[in-house]
Amino acid sequence: MNAPADKFLAASAQVDSAAIAPLPNSRKIYVQGSRPDLRVPMREIVQSDTPTGFGGEKNPPVTVYDCSGPYTDPDAQIDIRSGLAALRANWIAERGDTELLADLSSEFGRARAADPRLDELRFPGLQRQPRRAKAGANVTQMHYARRGIITPEMEFVAIRENLKRQEYVESLKRSGPTGEKMARLLTRQHPGQSFGASIPAEITPEFVRSEIARGRAIIPNNINHPESEPMIIGRNFLVKINANIGNSALGSSINEEVDKMTWAIRWGGDTVMDLSTGKNIHETREWIVRNSPVPIGTVPIYQALEKVNGKAEDLTWEIFKDTLIEQAEQGVDYFTIHAGVLLRYVPLTADRMTGIVSRGGSIMAKWCLAHHQENFLYTHFEEICEIMKAYDVAFSLGDGLRPGSIYDANDEAQLGELKTLGELTQIAWKHDVQVMIEGPGHVPLHLIKENMDLQLEQCSEAPFYTLGPLTTDIAPGYDHITSGIGAATIGWYGCAMLCYVTPKEHLGLPDKDDVKTGIITYKLAAHAADLAKGHPGAQIRDNALSKARFEFRWDDQFNLGLDPDKAREFHDETLPKESAKVAHFCSMCGPHFCSMKITQDVRDFAAKQGLAESQAIEKGMEVKAIEFVKMGAEVYRQV
Amino acid sequence: MNAPADKFLAASAQVDSAAIAPLPNSRKIYVQGSRPDLRVPMREIVQSDTPTGFGGEKNPPVTVYDCSGPYTDPDAQIDIRSGLAALRANWIAERGDTELLADLSSEFGRARAADPRLDELRFPGLQRQPRRAKAGANVTQMHYARRGIITPEMEFVAIRENLKRQEYVESLKRSGPTGEKMARLLTRQHPGQSFGASIPAEITPEFVRSEIARGRAIIPNNINHPESEPMIIGRNFLVKINANIGNSALGSSINEEVDKMTWAIRWGGDTVMDLSTGKNIHETREWIVRNSPVPIGTVPIYQALEKVNGKAEDLTWEIFKDTLIEQAEQGVDYFTIHAGVLLRYVPLTADRMTGIVSRGGSIMAKWCLAHHQENFLYTHFEEICEIMKAYDVAFSLGDGLRPGSIYDANDEAQLGELKTLGELTQIAWKHDVQVMIEGPGHVPLHLIKENMDLQLEQCSEAPFYTLGPLTTDIAPGYDHITSGIGAATIGWYGCAMLCYVTPKEHLGLPDKDDVKTGIITYKLAAHAADLAKGHPGAQIRDNALSKARFEFRWDDQFNLGLDPDKAREFHDETLPKESAKVAHFCSMCGPHFCSMKITQDVRDFAAKQGLAESQAIEKGMEVKAIEFVKMGAEVYRQV
Repeated sequence: MNAPADKFLAASAQVDSAAIAPLPNSRKIYVQGSRPDLRVPMREIVQSDTPTGFGGEKNPPVTVYDCSGPYTDPDAQIDIRSGLAALRANWIAERGDTELLADLSSEFGRARAADPRLDELRFPGLQRQPRRAKAGANVTQMHYARRGIITPEMEFVAIRENLKRQEYVESLKRSGPTGEKMARLLTRQHPGQSFGASIPAEITPEFVRSEIARGRAIIPNNINHPESEPMIIGRNFLVKINANIGNSALGSSINEEVDKMTWAIRWGGDTVMDLSTGKNIHETREWIVRNSPVPIGTVPIYQALEKVNGKAEDLTWEIFKDTLIEQAEQGVDYFTIHAGVLLRYVPLTADRMTGIVSRGGSIMAKWCLAHHQENFLYTHFEEICEIMKAYDVAFSLGDGLRPGSIYDANDEAQLGELKTLGELTQIAWKHDVQVMIEGPGHVPLHLIKENMDLQLEQCSEAPFYTLGPLTTDIAPGYDHITSGIGAATIGWYGCAMLCYVTPKEHLGLPDKDDVKTGIITYKLAAHAADLAKGHPGAQIRDNALSKARFEFRWDDQFNLGLDPDKAREFHDETLPKESAKVAHFCSMCGPHFCSMKITQDVRDFAAKQGLAESQAIEKGMEVKAIEFVKMGAEVYRQV
Repeated sequence: MNAPADKFLAASAQVDSAAIAPLPNSRKIYVQGSRPDLRVPMREIVQSDTPTGFGGEKNPPVTVYDCSGPYTDPDAQIDIRSGLAALRANWIAERGDTELLADLSSEFGRARAADPRLDELRFPGLQRQPRRAKAGANVTQMHYARRGIITPEMEFVAIRENLKRQEYVESLKRSGPTGEKMARLLTRQHPGQSFGASIPAEITPEFVRSEIARGRAIIPNNINHPESEPMIIGRNFLVKINANIGNSALGSSINEEVDKMTWAIRWGGDTVMDLSTGKNIHETREWIVRNSPVPIGTVPIYQALEKVNGKAEDLTWEIFKDTLIEQAEQGVDYFTIHAGVLLRYVPLTADRMTGIVSRGGSIMAKWCLAHHQENFLYTHFEEICEIMKAYDVAFSLGDGLRPGSIYDANDEAQLGELKTLGELTQIAWKHDVQVMIEGPGHVPLHLIKENMDLQLEQCSEAPFYTLGPLTTDIAPGYDHITSGIGAATIGWYGCAMLCYVTPKEHLGLPDKDDVKTGIITYKLAAHAADLAKGHPGAQIRDNALSKARFEFRWDDQFNLGLDPDKAREFHDETLPKESAKVAHFCSMCGPHFCSMKITQDVRDFAAKQGLAESQAIEKGMEVKAIEFVKMGAEVYRQV
C-alpha cells in the first residue's frame, strides 16, 4: 500500500504483492467441466525425480485444493480497484428467476452511495446493478436441489472436491516399470472412523445435489457475489476452514482488510468472515466482496448496532432488515444470525464464569432485557428467510450463548440455544434456505463429542461450524493451538467447517502474520480430521510428502507442505547452502546418525531375505548403499 | 555468554540471565514435608482484587506446578560452574545401601577425566565421588516401594502433585462474605472421562508408593543426580512433558545446551533429554546434569556410536556397557534403550514409506543386519537391568520401529516391537527396575487410541511416553501443532508423558525460541489432557484465568497463563498504554461491542428474576452497569 497508513484512498489501492507471488514449483490449473465456462481451479505441485540411488522414478505432480482464486494465476490481470471477474454471472442470469434492480433496495445503502464524502473511499469498480429473485421466486441452491436440478455450482464443487484423484492414480501407473506399485504405495490410506458420515469414494454432481437437498451441505453463494468460486460445506466433504478479518474502532484500514483477505485465501481460507465493527463498514465490505473468490460471511447485527450508535436497546427490526438487504445486495454469502438467544435462556447465563462472550449474543441479550421482549430475530425469523431466499444468502445460525470458558462448557444456556437452532433449521428448510449451525467456543476435550452428537441430532445434520473449540483457558497467546486441538477433534467427529482462532485471540486484533498462523494451524487441523474420517484421497499429500522426505528431496518436501516458505526458512537457518537441499541428512542428526540413510541398508537386507514385494525396488541398492556409507562426511552430492 | 560463540570456556560460563528472572507477580514457595530437608517447590501467582464494579473480592494466589528449580528462587545463589545443591544427598546416603567409589567405574569416563585437553571445557564444580549400590543391593524406588517403604522422594512427589489444593479452597472460603460461593465457583470441575485410570482425589505418599510398586508410575532419579527434585510419571498423575535438547555434529556449544535446559524448565519441561551427538558429549552432559533440577534422559547408543566413529557394525556390548556405567555415574536418570528392535522385525520395515526413523532403532537395525545376530541390547537385557538397579536409572524402552509417516502408522513392525517391549517390561520389573515405554511418532487421530490401548494391555500399564504423535505429515514448520493435537489426545487416553516436538522438527535443530514454543505447546496439550481425564484440581487454573478475563484483570490474565510475556506483548501491540490494562474492553471489540461488559447487565436482569444464586453477587450492580454504559468511549479507568 502506497497510501499513508492513516488515510486510505480508493484511487491508489493496490493488491498486496505477496498475495500474487506464485507458490514454489506450483502451477495453477483449471479442470474443465461440462460447459466451457465451468473451469475449476486447482494447484499442481510439481516434483523432482527420485534420486537414482533411491530408484530414479518420476514423481507426478500432486494436485491440491486451491482457495486463492485468480490471485495466483499468472495469466490473470489483478487490480483490486476493478475487482474480480464475475465467473458465475451467466449461470445466475440464465436461470431466469432473477431480475436486475434499478437501484439498491436498502435505504442505508442508497444514502452511502450518494454521499460525496465517501467518494475517496468507495470501491470504484462495480458497474453491475443489484440482482434479486423475481417476485415469488426462490433462488437458493437448496431450492434447485430439491427440484432435482444440478446447477453449475454443484458440478463445480463436485469436480473441486475430487482433486483429480483418478488422474493422479493413472499418472502414477504410467510413471515407469514400478508404476503399479507406486500407485498402490502413494494412494494407500488407512480406513477411517467417520462416526456415521456417508462419504462416497468419488464425489458426483448428483451426490452434491442430494446432500444440499437433504440440508446436509451448503454452497454459500449469493447471486450478488458472482465472483465467487463455489465451494461446499458439509460433513461428507473435505473439512473447510474460515478466517475472520475485520477492523474495530481501534483498528485497521480498508486496504489492510483486503490484504488480510487475499493473504488468508492464499494459505487456504475456504471462506472469510468480515467482522468489521469500526467506521466505514459498508465500504470496507464492498472492497472485500468485489475482490473475494471465496464466500464472505458477516454478522449483520454488528453494523445494525453501529447505526444506532452502539445502543443495543435502540435496535429495531426495521433497521436490522434494511441492513440484511443492504448486505445481501452487496453479495454477502452467509449471515450469522443470533436468533436462538431467547429471553428465557438469558438468565441461565448469570451464574456462568464468563457470561455471554458472543458479541452478537450479548447485543441480543441486552436488547431482550431492555425491552423485556422476545429476540426480534426469532420473532421475525420467517421474514428473514424471505430475504435469504431472494438472494441465496445462507444462514449461519449463531451460537450467541456459546461458552467463553471451560467452566461454562455444555451448560444449560448453551444446550438450550442449540435446541432452538435445531427448530429454526426446520423453519429455514421449509423455505429451502441453506443453513449451517455455529458452535463453541471453550470445551474440554472429552466434552467435544457431546457437542457434535447433540448438534447432529437436534439440527438434523445441518453442517456444524465451530470456533475451535479451545480445549483449555490457560494459554493466551497460543489459542490457535489450544483450539486447533479441539478443531481437529470435532472435525473428525463430523464438524463441517472450522472457524480459525489466531494467536491474538483474547488479546488483540490479528495482523497478517497472525492470520497466516491461524490459517495454517486450521488447515492442518482440518486435514488431520479428513485423515481420521477416512476422506477418500486425503492421505495422498501425506504420502507424497513423506516419500519426498525419505528420499531427501528437500525442496519437494517444502513445496508439498502447507507453508513452503516457513519450512525452507527453518531448514536454511542451520544448513543454508543450496547443496544441502540434496544432502542425505539434515542438521538434526548430521551425516553419521541419519536413520533414513541407514534404512537403505535395511531394505537391502530385507530384499536378501527374499521378501517378494521388496525385491524389485531394492534391485541394485546394495552397491549404492556401500558406496554411500564410504562417502562418510563428504556426503553432499549434486543431483 | 561472554565467551566467543565458537569457543566455550568453563571458567567464564554463566547462567542465561533470562532463565533466572522472576516470573511476573510470582513467588517461589516451598511446602514443608515431614522432615526439615523435604521442601517442595511451587510457584504462587499473586492476583489483584476484583474491581469494585464486579464484586470487589480478594483473589487468593493460585499455586502452579514449578519445574524451574532454584533458578527462579531469588534467594538461591546460581553459578552454573558450581552446579545446584544436592538436595537428595542425605536421603540417598541415609538409606545405607550405597557406597562411594574411589574412582569412576567407566574406563571412558576415567580417560576423559584425565585428559588435560578437556580442562577448559570440563565442568569445574563436582567434588562428589560417584555412588553405587553396595554389592547385592537394589536402590530403585520400585524396590523400596515393593518392600512397603515410603521414601522421601515419594512423599515429595505426593505433595508436589496436590499443588496445595486444599489450602486454596480454604483461602477462598476465607476471602470474604461470598467465600463459600467463590470456593465452589473456582474449584468446580467437569467430571472427566479417564478410560480406566484410577486417579484419587488427593495424592498420598502411600498412593505414590503403591503406584510405583505396581509399575504404573516411575520416579526417575539416579542416586548420582541428587540435585534433582523428584517428579512422577504415570497415568494417575498429572501428565508430564519432556524437552529434547542436544547438539549435533553441525550444532551448538555446551553453553547453548545448558541455556536450552534452563530455558526449557523455566517454561515447564518436566524432564529433559540430552540427545547430543556431536563432540564432547560427555562434558556437555556433565554440565547439564549438574545444573538440572529435573530428571535427565539420554540415548546411550548415540554416544556409543561416537566411540566407534559412527560405524554401527563396530558397536559391541562391552563398549555399550561402559557407556551405560559412564552415564549412570554422571547421574542420568533414564536411558532410552532400543532393546525391542529384533532381527525378525527389521525386514517388516522394508516396505514402509519411511523405513526406520528412530536414530537408535536404525543403528540397532544396522548392527543386526551387519552381524546377522539378535540385537545385543535384547540379549544382554538382564545385565542392563543389573546396572540400572545399582544406580536407579529408569528404562525408557525405545520404540526404534516407530512410524515416521502416517502411511506407516500402526503397522506390523511397530506393533511387533511394542509386544516385545511388554515382555521386556516384565523382565525389568523382575529386577524391580523402573520402566516407561516410548511410543510414536506419526499416527492419524483415529488410530491413536489403538496405540494407547495396546500399550496399556501389553505393557501392563507401565507409563507410556510418546513423541507427539503427529496427526498429519503435511505441515513441516508446524509440527509442534500437528503433534500437539496427537499429544493432547493420547494424554487424555492415558499417556503419562509427552515428548515435545518443536517447530523445527524434520527441518533443523531447535534454538531457544523453538524450545519455548515446543514447551508451551506441550504444556497446554498436557493440561488439555488433564482436564479431559478429570484430574482433580486441573480446572483451578482455567477457572482463575477465566474469572480474571471476565473481570478485565488483564495483568492477572497474562500472569495466570502459561506464557505471560507473550500474552502481554500481544496485547500491547494494539493497546500499549498501561491504562488499557484496566480498560473494560480489548482491541478486538472496542468499547461499544464488548460482550463481557454487556453481560453485566444480563446478570442484573437475572438477579431481578429472583435467581437465588445470583442475588448476592449482583447486589448493587445495576447502578454500576448504567453508569458504565453512560461512560461510552471514555471507558478507561484507573483502579
